[in-house]
Amino acid sequence: MTAPAELSPTLQLACDLIRRPSVTPVDADCQAQMMQRLGAVGFELEPMRIEDVDNFWATHGTQPGPVLCFAGHTDVVPTGPVQQWQHEPFQALIDADGMLCGRGAADMKGSLACMVVASERFVRDYPEHRGQVAFLITSDEEGPAHHGTKAVVERLKARNQRLDWCIVGEPSSTTVLGDVVKNGRRGSLGATLTVRGKQGHVAYPHLARNPIHLAAPALAELAAEHWDQGNAFFPPTSFQISNLNAGTGATNVVPGELTALFNFRFSTESTVEGLKARVSAILDKHELDWSVEWALSGLPFLTEPGELLDAVSASIKGVTGRETQPSTSGGTSDGRFIATMGTQVVELGPVNATIHQVDERILASDLDLLTEIYYQTLVRLLA
Amino acid sequence: MTAPAELSPTLQLACDLIRRPSVTPVDADCQAQMMQRLGAVGFELEPMRIEDVDNFWATHGTQPGPVLCFAGHTDVVPTGPVQQWQHEPFQALIDADGMLCGRGAADMKGSLACMVVASERFVRDYPEHRGQVAFLITSDEEGPAHHGTKAVVERLKARNQRLDWCIVGEPSSTTVLGDVVKNGRRGSLGATLTVRGKQGHVAYPHLARNPIHLAAPALAELAAEHWDQGNAFFPPTSFQISNLNAGTGATNVVPGELTALFNFRFSTESTVEGLKARVSAILDKHELDWSVEWALSGLPFLTEPGELLDAVSASIKGVTGRETQPSTSGGTSDGRFIATMGTQVVELGPVNATIHQVDERILASDLDLLTEIYYQTLVRLLA
Repeated sequence: MTAPAELSPTLQLACDLIRRPSVTPVDADCQAQMMQRLGAVGFELEPMRIEDVDNFWATHGTQPGPVLCFAGHTDVVPTGPVQQWQHEPFQALIDADGMLCGRGAADMKGSLACMVVASERFVRDYPEHRGQVAFLITSDEEGPAHHGTKAVVERLKARNQRLDWCIVGEPSSTTVLGDVVKNGRRGSLGATLTVRGKQGHVAYPHLARNPIHLAAPALAELAAEHWDQGNAFFPPTSFQISNLNAGTGATNVVPGELTALFNFRFSTESTVEGLKARVSAILDKHELDWSVEWALSGLPFLTEPGELLDAVSASIKGVTGRETQPSTSGGTSDGRFIATMGTQVVELGPVNATIHQVDERILASDLDLLTEIYYQTLVRLLA
Repeated sequence: MTAPAELSPTLQLACDLIRRPSVTPVDADCQAQMMQRLGAVGFELEPMRIEDVDNFWATHGTQPGPVLCFAGHTDVVPTGPVQQWQHEPFQALIDADGMLCGRGAADMKGSLACMVVASERFVRDYPEHRGQVAFLITSDEEGPAHHGTKAVVERLKARNQRLDWCIVGEPSSTTVLGDVVKNGRRGSLGATLTVRGKQGHVAYPHLARNPIHLAAPALAELAAEHWDQGNAFFPPTSFQISNLNAGTGATNVVPGELTALFNFRFSTESTVEGLKARVSAILDKHELDWSVEWALSGLPFLTEPGELLDAVSASIKGVTGRETQPSTSGGTSDGRFIATMGTQVVELGPVNATIHQVDERILASDLDLLTEIYYQTLVRLLA
C-alpha cells in the first residue's frame, strides 16, 4: 500500500473522490472538490442543481474556436455486500499489484481525476488556447438520470450553447487502456407485451384460449427476425426477450394472459417507428389479441471518423503505442443526450472489467496514462 | 323451507350427510351412518381405515352371479368464503325453488343417499337376488387420494375380489338429470419442462443464449401438434401449457432458464410412453438443452357399450324419458382406479353445474329420481 504523499496528482485526486461515498444521486461534495480545482485555474463555474441532482457546467477560454467538453458523473452504483469486498469499498487503496481499488475507481472517478488534472495542466501550458475547455458533470448517471445530463443538455440547448466535441470518461477499455473507444451507442427500446387469451380448465381446452399456445409462434418469429444488417459502425440490431410469464401456478388452469418483456438494442439502420411497426405486423399476422407498452431509453448515436476521433486515436497511440478500436457496442451512456446537440462524442476511459462488481479496481498507473492521453487530445484540438 | 318429516327417505339421508362437515379427509361419521343403514338390511360391513383415511367395503348377496358396486366419497371440498353463501353450507336446506343447498349436495352426498336407499329397497324386494350388491366408499377423493379408493382397490385385488360393474355417484349430469353419463375418462399426464440457456446482459446477446428464444419454436410446435384423432369414445388427446416462466425481473438480463408446466389429457389412442417419446423428439429436433419431470395422474379407461351401460341408459330412459349421452370428457375421478380391476365403470349422478362452488345445490326432486334410476338398474342387472 502506497502512502498518499507518493501518489501522482491524478491518483491523489482519484483517491479523494473515491473516499466520498457518492451513491446515486448523492454527490458527497465530489463536485465541490472538482469545481474548487477548476476554479483555481480560471474556469468559470456554473452549478446546476436540478431537483435532487447535483450537476455543474464549467468553461475555460475566451478565444474564438471550437468547444471541447469533458463529461462524466460523480455518482457510483451501490457497493453490494460489503463483506465480500477484499478492501473497504470507499477506502481507495492501491494494492500490492498496483491496482487502485474502490467503488468508482473505473466508473468513473478515475476518469474525473484525469480530466481535472489534464485540464489544469493544459490551461497552465496554453493560457491563450483557442475555443473553450468545458466540463459537464452530473451526480445521476447510474440512477433514473432524469435530472442529470439530459436536463443540463436541455438548458444548454435553450441558450444555444455550442458544443463541438465531447469526451465522456466512461470506462471504454476492455483489456488494456485505450484498446477501445466508444464512438457511438446503439439505441435501446424496451417493451412490455401482453397477449390475452381466455382462462379455463385444462380438462376443457375447447372452452379456453391458451395465450401461451397462441403467442409461441409469434415469439419464435420475433426471436428469429433479422431486423437489420447493421453497418460499418454498428452491429445488427438485436432483439431479446428478458422475461416471460404466464400461468396461475395451478397445473390444471389454462392462463388468461401472457406477459413478455423485450428489448431492442438498435443500430442507426433501424428507427423506433420502423421497429414498432414490424413488431405490430408480426403480432397481427398471428392474429393475437395483444397490446404493447413501449419505453424508449435512448436513440442510437454515432461519431463518424473525424477531428475528435482522430485526435483521441493519435493521443492513445502516442501515449500507449496502441491502435484503438472504435466501437458502438455495450450499454447506453449519457453520451446519447450530449449527441443530440450535434456534438461529436467519444467515450474514453479505463478498463471496464470490474465495473458494478464487488472489488471494482483498475491499474493505478493507467490513470496517469489516461491523464496524458486527455492532455494530448486537448493539445491536438485546442492548443 | 320444508320440515324434515315431509322429506323422502333419500332427502332425509342426504340432509343428514350434508350436515356432517366432512371436509377432506375428515369423514365426520358419514360412513358410520351409511354402514348403520346398510348393516340393518343385511350387508356385510368391512371398514378399511388406511392411514388417516376412512373407507369401507360392504356386500350383500350369497347367490352366484356378477358383482355390482356403488362407489363414492363422503368427503367434500372446502366451503370457500362462508359469508358468500346464501345459506350456511352445512345447513342442508331446501329453498323456495326446491333446490337442496349445501356443500356436497351435488358432489356427492346426494348420490350416496340415493345408493343407500335404492339398495335398501332392492334387497328388501329381492332378498334372493343373484350375485352381489357392493359399496366402495372413501373419505379422500377430493384430496391426495393415496389412501382412498386406490388403496382399497389394491386390497380387493390382492384377495381376488370380483367386481364386474361399478356405478360411481359423481355428478355426471350437465343440464338435467341423466342427460350425460361418463363411460370413461381421459388419462392425465403432467410435466415440468426446463430449457437451459446461458444468462447474460441484453446488451451483449452474443455472450448469452436466450432460453426463451431457443424454446419458443419448440413450444409452438408442441402446441400445434395433433397427438391423435381420438376415437368413437374419446375426443382427441389435448396438450396444454399451464404455466410458463423465465426471467429475473430485470429488463436488461437474458435469463438462464425457462420453465414450462404442461399437461396431456389423453385418449386410449395414445400411450404414456408414446407421448413422452414424441415430446422428446420435438425438443431434441430443436436442439434444446432440456429436461422433463413427468407425473402420471391417471391412465385413460373406457367402458364400451354393454350390459352396464345398457342397463343404466334404459333406467334413465324409464325414469326420466331421456336418452342419455355417454361421455369421456372432463377431469379424472376414482373410476380410473376401479377400472384397473377389469370392471365396467359408469359415472351417474346429479347435475354438476355448482360443484366446488359457493352455493352448491341441486334440484331436490332429482335425488328421488336418481334413487329410482339406481333401483331400476339393480333390478335389471341383479334381480
